[in-house]
Amino acid sequence: LILAADNLQITNKTIAKAIGDLDPAPIREMVKKCEAAGADAIDINPGPLSHNPEDKMAFLVNSVQKVSDLPIIIDTANSKAIEAGLYANTKTAIINGFSLEPAKLAEILPLAKKFNADIIGYLLQSNGHMAADAQERLNLAVEILQACQKIDLDLNRLIIDPVLAPLTWGNGGFQSMEVLSVIKCLPEILGRPVRTVIGLSNLTTGRNNLDKKLLLESAYLPMLAASGLSMVLINIFHHSTVKVARACTRLINREIFAWEQL
Amino acid sequence: LILAADNLQITNKTIAKAIGDLDPAPIREMVKKCEAAGADAIDINPGPLSHNPEDKMAFLVNSVQKVSDLPIIIDTANSKAIEAGLYANTKTAIINGFSLEPAKLAEILPLAKKFNADIIGYLLQSNGHMAADAQERLNLAVEILQACQKIDLDLNRLIIDPVLAPLTWGNGGFQSMEVLSVIKCLPEILGRPVRTVIGLSNLTTGRNNLDKKLLLESAYLPMLAASGLSMVLINIFHHSTVKVARACTRLINREIFAWEQL
Repeated sequence: LILAADNLQITNKTIAKAIGDLDPAPIREMVKKCEAAGADAIDINPGPLSHNPEDKMAFLVNSVQKVSDLPIIIDTANSKAIEAGLYANTKTAIINGFSLEPAKLAEILPLAKKFNADIIGYLLQSNGHMAADAQERLNLAVEILQACQKIDLDLNRLIIDPVLAPLTWGNGGFQSMEVLSVIKCLPEILGRPVRTVIGLSNLTTGRNNLDKKLLLESAYLPMLAASGLSMVLINIFHHSTVKVARACTRLINREIFAWEQL
Repeated sequence: LILAADNLQITNKTIAKAIGDLDPAPIREMVKKCEAAGADAIDINPGPLSHNPEDKMAFLVNSVQKVSDLPIIIDTANSKAIEAGLYANTKTAIINGFSLEPAKLAEILPLAKKFNADIIGYLLQSNGHMAADAQERLNLAVEILQACQKIDLDLNRLIIDPVLAPLTWGNGGFQSMEVLSVIKCLPEILGRPVRTVIGLSNLTTGRNNLDKKLLLESAYLPMLAASGLSMVLINIFHHSTVKVARACTRLINREIFAWEQL
């Protein structure tokens, strides 16, 4: 289970200011902290980037890669920013991401082929709405795969995000179980192995009690891991969740167990 | 997910002495503590009971039921002790348990019919050895079901224990994942719904660091819960594991979620 830190994001005021000022110091500091906390990859989420999207994303990628060799995840809906980020990238980059929304199919998906980069495909309806259940997600996954085939993208580049709903939504509990089923069924439905990713913070989004958030993350993440999830975007400073994630990896790898390695 | 406390057991020196002295006070105190800690059922595990098995088990059942209405699980390989416990029982009792070992089939399984009690069937080979993998466990489950049918037992009485191996065994990690697969596949293989139980303490058996034990329990229990496990025997004083178990139940029930209920 690959742990991608979702901490480098515009909702963090220090990060927002650093992006506005093009000041690399707070960015570098955050990335070092994420790596020290156990991140295997860094998600770069600067929001929609309405002004100077290319300069800002290039600045962010350069700032991250100055202090870290970890793979980066270029997380924005702005295709110009993604392209600028991919030009700036000197290591491993994942585009985050596209869906069946026509603009994203037209502008974002082709960048994966152009830059030979991994890309995350969201199992969302073509109008951007969340799918109703597991079956609809699996149908959307087939369409996503077909869209990749249509542009002759190496299918190993695709990483699927089944899209988690907040638990506070009316059917959030139902959706969280449907997502497990989607992760389990995808290889059979697509007829090939496929990597998957989940944004775990979505589960407990909002201003809630941190202990309860951590408890729910700790309960749900092992379910995701046992379902076969490849990568999770998490707040890497949620140390108890990170510890559970590492324990899950030890269990799931079916290796010879040693207490010392825990 | 039903939480059965495994704390009332002979390996606890206070409990061992109370059984030897037929002193109900420490038994009652332990049961009250277990109920306060969140137990949904009480496992009574006095070991093999070489001397006065009937008197000791009847004493234990009486002592527990004097202070608690929780279901009891009569956990011994001694069929005479089981029968005495079932005679003493005035509430709900589960026999723990039988397997395909000939003596257990002959002496323990019929008690479920005689007393109209639930009974746990272990997926062990007929020589008492652990099964090699999930497939062998599923084959054993079919034989267990047939043994119940042969004596015309109400099949709803059967609860299956796939038998967890300690992680420290050479293939313990492998076995822990096989057990998940068994729990998931049982209803399809048996052609009917069936309750399942796991003794979680087996996973981390031995004198190990408590924090690491708790971490592994917290990582593995949600995997069991998501696989469809009905009941787990746990150290109910492992509060962090109990909290995770309750969170799992909230997630799995697919109910409307409310933070206040967590």
